[in-house]
Parts: sequence; C-alpha cells; structure tokens
Amino acid sequence: MNVDINCDMGESFGVYRLGFDEEMMAHITSANIACGFHAGDPIVMERTISLAKNHGVSVGAHPGFPDLVGFGRRSMELTPQEIRNDLIYQVGALSAFAQIEGLFLQHVKPHGQLYNLAAKDESMTKAICESILAVGKNLILVALSGSKMAEIASKSGLNVAREAFADRAYHRDGSLVSRKKEGSVIHDAQRVAERVIRMVQEGKVQTIEGDLIDLEVDSICVHGDTPGAVHLAKTVRKNLEEAGVRVLPMGKSLQR
Amino acid sequence: MNVDINCDMGESFGVYRLGFDEEMMAHITSANIACGFHAGDPIVMERTISLAKNHGVSVGAHPGFPDLVGFGRRSMELTPQEIRNDLIYQVGALSAFAQIEGLFLQHVKPHGQLYNLAAKDESMTKAICESILAVGKNLILVALSGSKMAEIASKSGLNVAREAFADRAYHRDGSLVSRKKEGSVIHDAQRVAERVIRMVQEGKVQTIEGDLIDLEVDSICVHGDTPGAVHLAKTVRKNLEEAGVRVLPMGKSLQR
Amino acid sequence: MNVDINCDMGESFGVYRLGFDEEMMAHITSANIACGFHAGDPIVMERTISLAKNHGVSVGAHPGFPDLVGFGRRSMELTPQEIRNDLIYQVGALSAFAQIEGLFLQHVKPHGQLYNLAAKDESMTKAICESILAVGKNLILVALSGSKMAEIASKSGLNVAREAFADRAYHRDGSLVSRKKEGSVIHDAQRVAERVIRMVQEGKVQTIEGDLIDLEVDSICVHGDTPGAVHLAKTVRKNLEEAGVRVLPMGKSLQR
Amino acid sequence: MNVDINCDMGESFGVYRLGFDEEMMAHITSANIACGFHAGDPIVMERTISLAKNHGVSVGAHPGFPDLVGFGRRSMELTPQEIRNDLIYQVGALSAFAQIEGLFLQHVKPHGQLYNLAAKDESMTKAICESILAVGKNLILVALSGSKMAEIASKSGLNVAREAFADRAYHRDGSLVSRKKEGSVIHDAQRVAERVIRMVQEGKVQTIEGDLIDLEVDSICVHGDTPGAVHLAKTVRKNLEEAGVRVLPMGKSLQR
Repeated sequence: MNVDINCDMGESFGVYRLGFDEEMMAHITSANIACGFHAGDPIVMERTISLAKNHGVSVGAHPGFPDLVGFGRRSMELTPQEIRNDLIYQVGALSAFAQIEGLFLQHVKPHGQLYNLAAKDESMTKAICESILAVGKNLILVALSGSKMAEIASKSGLNVAREAFADRAYHRDGSLVSRKKEGSVIHDAQRVAERVIRMVQEGKVQTIEGDLIDLEVDSICVHGDTPGAVHLAKTVRKNLEEAGVRVLPMGKSLQR
Repeated sequence: MNVDINCDMGESFGVYRLGFDEEMMAHITSANIACGFHAGDPIVMERTISLAKNHGVSVGAHPGFPDLVGFGRRSMELTPQEIRNDLIYQVGALSAFAQIEGLFLQHVKPHGQLYNLAAKDESMTKAICESILAVGKNLILVALSGSKMAEIASKSGLNVAREAFADRAYHRDGSLVSRKKEGSVIHDAQRVAERVIRMVQEGKVQTIEGDLIDLEVDSICVHGDTPGAVHLAKTVRKNLEEAGVRVLPMGKSLQR
Repeated sequence: MNVDINCDMGESFGVYRLGFDEEMMAHITSANIACGFHAGDPIVMERTISLAKNHGVSVGAHPGFPDLVGFGRRSMELTPQEIRNDLIYQVGALSAFAQIEGLFLQHVKPHGQLYNLAAKDESMTKAICESILAVGKNLILVALSGSKMAEIASKSGLNVAREAFADRAYHRDGSLVSRKKEGSVIHDAQRVAERVIRMVQEGKVQTIEGDLIDLEVDSICVHGDTPGAVHLAKTVRKNLEEAGVRVLPMGKSLQR
Repeated sequence: MNVDINCDMGESFGVYRLGFDEEMMAHITSANIACGFHAGDPIVMERTISLAKNHGVSVGAHPGFPDLVGFGRRSMELTPQEIRNDLIYQVGALSAFAQIEGLFLQHVKPHGQLYNLAAKDESMTKAICESILAVGKNLILVALSGSKMAEIASKSGLNVAREAFADRAYHRDGSLVSRKKEGSVIHDAQRVAERVIRMVQEGKVQTIEGDLIDLEVDSICVHGDTPGAVHLAKTVRKNLEEAGVRVLPMGKSLQR
C-alpha cells in the first residue's frame, strides 16, 4: 500500500517570498511547481527544481491563469485554445529547467481557479487533457478524486492521480466544504493524519455530515504556506509510514 | 555554395498584429520566433510554428528582455543568471510548441538589446551560450558575423551561424552603421540582392567608407515588418538562386 | 437637438499600433482613452490626449480588465473592491495626463467585458459607479441605453450618457444582436447614418425583427479600428449636421 | 529644529506581503507608497493610504521602473520621455486614491535604480523633475542630500527634501558606502539614533574613513522590511524627540 504526498511549491516571485519550500521538501514526494503565470519566475523555478532534486522529490508543473496580481485565483473566461496554449507554454518552460537538472516532469496539476473550473467545465478539462497529452504522453494529471475532471482525463487516455486534501472537510457527495463554512479546514495535525490513513488504507473519509464515503486516493495534497504547514506534513507522513504505508512519488505507483 | 535567410517572426501579441509573417514565410528558410517576453504569446507562438512548418521553414527561438512595452529594445541590467534563466524559460516554452508539431528548434537568436548587448558584453554572451548549451547541445546561436559574440560562442562549443544584414550598411571594422546616419539602410531591393550575393559568393561587402571588407556569412537577416519587406526578401532569394546559391536552413549547412 | 459621437482611442501599446486615431479625431466629439490595463501605455495616453486636445475632442477614461493579452475581452471574476480600485487607478493615471494638458476628464466608459458584465451584474455596476463618483463627481458614465447599468448609475447619482451603437443591429428588447449572427453589423455608411439620425431625432430604432423600438441616445459610439471606420464616422457626422443635429461633446449637453 | 522620517511603504503585491507597514506607521511621518510598477497594486495602494491617514502620516508617491520581477532594482535604459510619462502615470494613479481619502500627495521619491540613476544622470533627473512639476507644483522631491539630483531639482524650481539614510555609512564625498563593503550598514539602533541626531542638530556625519563631513538633512530614511526595522525606527524617533527635535512631515517644514 502506498501513496504520494504533493505540495504547491515555487510560488515566490522576484523579491517576494511565499511558502516554506525548503522545510516542506523533506516531507513530500511530489512538488507542484509554479510556472510564472500566477506565481514563480525563471529564477524561482530553477531554484525549486534544484531543491526538489536534492530531496529526491519528483517534480511537476503547476500552471495557472495569466493573472499574477490575482494569484490565479480569479476565474477567467479563456477559450479552450487559450487554456491549452497557456498550459503548453508553462509546462514547456518548466520542462527546460527540469531537463537541465537531468529530471523529467512527472505530473501536471492545474492551479487555483484553473483547477476548480476544470473540475466543473468539460471543455476546459478537455483542453487541459489535450495539452498535457500533447506535451508528454507520460505526464500524470493530478485531479480531485471523484471529480468530473478525473473521469474525463482517464477516458482521454491520461494517467490520472486522484487527489485528496489532507486537512479539508468533505461533503457527502465528495465535494470539498467551502472554506467559508465552519469546520471546512481541520487544524489538528494528529486528526488530519488519522483521516489520511483511513483514506489511504480503507478508501474512506468521514464527511462533515457524519457519513462515511468512498474516496480513492493516489496522492495527498498538503499546503506549504499556512501556519503549521510543516508540522502537519511531517505528522501526516510519519503516521502514514508508521501505519505501514509507503510514501512514494505518484509516478512510482501509477501505471504508465 | 549555400546560405540561410532568417527573419524575426511571431512578434504579434494578443489583438496586436506586427509583421508580414504569412507573406514572408515563402521567402525565408529560418524563422526566429518571439517567445512571449518582448513580443509573442502562446497563441501566436503556435500559429507561427505551424505556419513555418507548412512552408518548410526551420524554427528557432527569438528570446528577449522581459519588457513588452519596450519591445525588448531597452537595455536592462540583468545578472548573468537572470539572462540565462530568462532564456531557458523562453526557449523551453517555444520548444514545447515545436515538439507538438513534430519539429525541433534549430537555433536561438537573441532579440533587440539582448542581441546588441551580447555582441559587446562578455558576461552576457557567456550567459547566453551557457543557457543554449544547457537547453540543447545541437542548437545553433545566430550571431553578428565578426562579433565578439560569434567568437566567444564558437569557443564555448556552440554551433554558430554568422549573420549579415541584407539591407544594412557596414563600417570598415565590420560594425553596422547606426540607423541614425544617412545611408545606414539600403532600400533598393536589387542593390541589396547584389550586396548579398557578393557576401555569400566572395565573402566580401563594400563599406560605407568605400572599402571592401571580409564578411563570412552563414545566414542573411531580412526584416519582416517594414514597407517593402516582402518584395526585398523575394528579390534577394530569387537573385541568390539565379546566381547558383542554394538557399537552405542554417541547420542543413552548418556542421553539428 | 444635439448628440455626442464617441470612439475608443489610444489602444496602441508600445510598438503595436491599433486604430485610426489620427483620422478619427476629426469626426468625433468624445474620445474614450485606454488606460494601460487592457491597452494603452503612458506614452500612448499622453499622445492621445494631446491629439484630442488639438481637435477639440473631449477626453474620457476607457478602463478595462487587467488583461493585456486578452485585450480586456475575457471575463474576469473580480471582487467589487478589485473592480473599484482598478478603475480608480486607471482613471487617476489618465487624469494626470489630462490635467497636464489643461483638460479635465469628461467621462468614463468601461471597456470590453467590463462594459458587458456591468450591463448585467448589479454588484459590478455599483462598484463602477462608486469608483467614478469617488474620483470625480462630475464625471459622466457612458452606458448602454436602456441597460440595467444606465438605470443603476442614474439612481446612484451619476451623470449618465446613454449610448447607442451606430452600426449594430438591435433586438426588440433593446439588446444588441450578437456579432455571431448575420446582420448584426450594418456596413453601409449611408444606412448607418440614417439609422443614427432616426435614433437622435425620433428616439427610435428599427430592430432586426422589424419593429420600431424606443431608444434614448445621448452619444453615438463609432468604431475606430475597422475597415471603413473613418468613412463611416465622417458620413454619420455629416448627415447628422445636415439634418440639423448639433454634434457636441456629451459634457456640453448633459446636465451636471 | 525639526526633521521628517520617511519609509518605503505599500510594496506588497497581490498575495505577496512585504514590509512591516502597520508597525512602521507609528514611527514615521512620511510614507513613500509604491505605485504598481515595481511593487504595489490598486488594493495595496488604497490600504496603505488609509493606514497612513489613520496614523497622521503624510503620503507620497514611490514610483519605479516597470519591472515587477526585478522590483525596480535593475537599471533600464528608458528615454527621458518614457521616464517622465511612467512617473506621471504612477503619480496620477496614486493621487486618485489619496484624493478619495481627502489627502494630497506631499512628495515623490523615486525607487531603487530610478533613484540611483537619477542621482547620476542629468537627463534622467530633468525628466523626473519635469514630470513632478507637471503633476503638481507643490510636490516635494526627496533626493539624496548633496547629490547632483538634489541640486538640479532645486534649480528647476522644485521643492526638495534632502534625505539621509539612518543606518548607512557615508564616504568622505557624501556618497553611501556600497552595501557590499563591510561596515556599510549600521545595525545598532542606539548608534544609529546618535548619528541621526548629529545629522539633524549639527548637520554633520562621521564618515567610514573617520572624518566629519557636512550633511544637510530634511528627512531621514528608515527601512521598513529588514529585521529590527521597527525597533530601529522607534529608537531613532524616541531619541530625536528626547533631544528636542520635532519630528514632522517634510511638507510642514519645507517652504513651498
């Protein structure tokens, strides 16, 4: 039994610092690296890839909307072709840095509203899948477990890593509880770790409504820029390993 | 005896159109494609690569300073690492589009002030060479014939295409006559064609001072956005071919 | 009886040229000047204001979404505060150039999707109205005649110029026929001029369905970047004046 | 006897936070607010002006080169007209937010390399002076005490606040010791405070070479984003006030 732990990385920009990238690297297996549109720049991208390499962490692209001031968190109505080409551009740019370090990109995880919209909008998901397949047939798409996006991507022939969020509460239908609602984020590291173990070992999660639902998980997403982030990631990983779960990059466990 | 004809392409951006890309493609053999920093965007980049492919034109990257409003024509004091990483980013992004079309990038030609500064500044040239070698050992650097840049690049192990400008006047020392001076640009297409033939066949050019100087040329640069550009390119190519010169992409004639 | 003719201006950017600004200025009375977010830059802004001044054309701000590559034509989900502050920023920047030329801004006309969304979304309209009132109580908002936006703006105490599009077909409900449909744009300058005269003199327009509907018009919008734009503007103005309509900047006819 | 204390503020951007703006406001009298080119955005600008207002701190513009990723710290070769217009744009944008809060801009302090280059390059200084005079005749330019810039600005009719850096070492000729040299930055708050008092009361500073030189000071610059910044600012102000110096916004002490 194994699982991947992924985290958004390389979201600093110029003089601006964001996220505990150095501290987090010790606890994760896959780094989603920003590509310069919503965050990141060519210096940060190289530094982050180098950091990941030093920790044996697999690297992937974390492309976003072209909206730096909004950090890719604002919906933008792009055409499928614009989405596709913005992704190819960003993944290509990051690939060059990976290649220089002797690495290959393992995965692509859309950022922010691109991720959220893709989970709902079929034409957007198709554009994303098409661009990933075009850039590299072995690239894995990281998608919300149980989402339309995960389903469409699988059908399109992409390798999909089904992702769950370590510290987020779920609804009965498998959707995430809005951050605006009380109880949406679980702060206790030990409780988060126990939930994660259950997800991985039993394929179940207890919803905010109290039920147990099925949730298939290939990768656990942890945050890298919140207070307590490092402690939480460390606790989750330690508990997983003590429970006999092997924590491995998604590329090692998913069939290609 | 053969020579390449190169032209800057893909410098449109969003709704903005620049250059006679479609018309020019019929007359050139290598396209220098903007990569989104000084000009170009992910839609334009793909369109330009596709256009080049349809015309059998070889594609290369035309990276510039990160200065869209200044079109990469304003000097910027970047560190060697910033230059290197900005280039890797841009070349990587363009590579992804090339690869999708089943093409490889043939060359890299720095744009505007990046080209001009690199012709003078050794640390900048080294940063450019290092980044090109890192991204692809077979990539050819297009450099001003006779320049420090061409020399340094050759020594660093890069393939270099020595470039001459079809319609520009030269000084005795091989430098270009400043555009501010009278006679710096030759507008008569037939006269331009004759100069180009002499460059290619004899390795000579007549300077503005009246002397003949040596000028080794692998590639002829023509402009793609000036009035008469299409006619000039067509005339140059026609005259070259009639004079028995084979007009071929630089990658076909330069040793790798 | 009088009416204003407005046109989007100053949408060039850096080396990129867009629109027949110089030719159009002779035929319009109000210029909507881009402010650097969707188009325009500090050099273009000053040049456009100076051009307007020379022609006695009144100047206004034409703020848009912060999306240069998309030319402000892509919907963005901004918060009301983001919209408000983006507008204040843009209007403030343009005001400085106007003031230096001894001019005051007469009006504000949102650009592209900001205009379209504001015509539908009440919170967006309110944010726009609030920002305009904050920056200058005498500023006129240009809004689609008959739209929710025109109504909300009037209620909020803003001076509103109700705008009609010279060459666009209307539906029975006063909305514009989508550009995707046949007949949405009327190309014959004489026919356009006749429609405009009827709008101004009778407050009526014939819809694409064939009915006559009411349409109150303070300002006629003409395009400045399409083939035939200059001829169309000239024809409309000439016909209006021959019909006895005075063509005046909106600020001269609207009560403040 | 009085002096101003100024500090760069509002250099956050989008999700990125920079500087201890809230804590610093209690200890300064003039805030130099970034205007969106090298740092800052429309949300941050309004928040910073509001914060300054609440603390009775006077506000000024802190315009920079259009280089967000380089934080305005990289030289750019702009034409005098480009510098002038970039400044007018930025100052105009900030003015709008100030005006909404019922404030007037007190001063302009160029940022980073724009400040450094202007201290050396006469044509750049003239462009800056011209743009400030154009936007507002009462605006004060903050310039390095003893610099060419301070001199040229005074001659051009601008009000100039001669600035000294609280924690930086000076050379015998009045220039700042390069940050790369040992001893260039003085970290001990008490020692900094004593130097500042001597500058203000005696118009003298001890150089790194050991001499006493003249240094006329209207405003003391403190940093807002370094470790110990808040403590240092607090200490300087407390010591100044205890020494009988009135700490007042520059606009209150400089003749207009």
